[in-house]
Amino acid sequence: MAVVSRELKCRTKGNGDAIDITGDTARVVQESRLRSGIVTLFVPGSTGAVTTIEFEPGAVSDLNRLFDEIVPPNRDYQHHLRWGDDNGHSHVRAALLGPSLTVPFADGELSLGTWQQIVFVDFDTGPRQRRIVAQVIGE
Amino acid sequence: MAVVSRELKCRTKGNGDAIDITGDTARVVQESRLRSGIVTLFVPGSTGAVTTIEFEPGAVSDLNRLFDEIVPPNRDYQHHLRWGDDNGHSHVRAALLGPSLTVPFADGELSLGTWQQIVFVDFDTGPRQRRIVAQVIGE
Amino acid sequence: MAVVSRELKCRTKGNGDAIDITGDTARVVQESRLRSGIVTLFVPGSTGAVTTIEFEPGAVSDLNRLFDEIVPPNRDYQHHLRWGDDNGHSHVRAALLGPSLTVPFADGELSLGTWQQIVFVDFDTGPRQRRIVAQVIGE
Repeated sequence: MAVVSRELKCRTKGNGDAIDITGDTARVVQESRLRSGIVTLFVPGSTGAVTTIEFEPGAVSDLNRLFDEIVPPNRDYQHHLRWGDDNGHSHVRAALLGPSLTVPFADGELSLGTWQQIVFVDFDTGPRQRRIVAQVIGE
Repeated sequence: MAVVSRELKCRTKGNGDAIDITGDTARVVQESRLRSGIVTLFVPGSTGAVTTIEFEPGAVSDLNRLFDEIVPPNRDYQHHLRWGDDNGHSHVRAALLGPSLTVPFADGELSLGTWQQIVFVDFDTGPRQRRIVAQVIGE
Repeated sequence: MAVVSRELKCRTKGNGDAIDITGDTARVVQESRLRSGIVTLFVPGSTGAVTTIEFEPGAVSDLNRLFDEIVPPNRDYQHHLRWGDDNGHSHVRAALLGPSLTVPFADGELSLGTWQQIVFVDFDTGPRQRRIVAQVIGE
């Protein structure tokens, strides 16, 4: 058993931009040389989240429509009063979708479905460089 | 420390059908002969999800009403334009609820509450055979 | 590799009361003397959940407004018919937000962002003593 930690980096546009990190995650698992175990993807920040989806523009757009409807950007947020920020909706969306995803692997391969990708979703309000922790535990 | 991977199988009706997989999960932990650690439940597909709930028909129905309200089936989805599919809402619901759940165990017993069960929810639009990965890591 | 399990305890007011359990979680990791791995926070019950958020009253209030809007307390729930309970909304909210969170650590430090805290959210309808399982796996 061993633990291997890496950081994935990506550039996002914000505002619900979804980045497919499946390939990067698979590479971390391969480079760990571990055969079976779990990889945890974790967003070290409070305006981004991870989940899985069939990564094609339609499904990503549909997911963002949901967030636009239930957590709209253009209304008052108590968080704004605190800091003068404009990203109250980003915080709520990220807390709801969640910062953490655990994916098993076996024989060195992620246990994903054929039409299922791991995505990082950046809910913050502008473009930026982002990082995601990928940590592998296994044998 | 060891890693043990199994596949759970179940037949679902789709459309929010929730299957109690607590017993199957407990059995995988028991058969692993590990005493403490975590079991990760993971759905290898993009139209199903896992969570916990008090598994009785009322609570399951209440959860499905929420999804019917915030991600209704009968409207346009961009995902449909791509594939001619009818399950855009299934993809959005599954991404929101999440494909992954991690449950600790100690002394060979899952750390669940008395009125808490592990459920697989199939959001796809028809009946089918489904599988869930159950992977145990522990000692 | 080793597994260390602890229970965190807290007193909550219920009704969406969010408790910052970051310090308690960090202490469990420190006391485990493990250097790298994951800590799993798990709520053994079906009316509470865990996530991360920037822990300030505004963001917590914004998150609770979302739940008040999409899962309002004052309406009929099928769960009430079963038990005569009044907490159908608590069950739906908890199932949606999720009972489980996995946070990596490296060099004995949680991989959290600067403005990101781990919170337990109690959706039940009254004050009570609550417990959360914190289980560390690592080396």
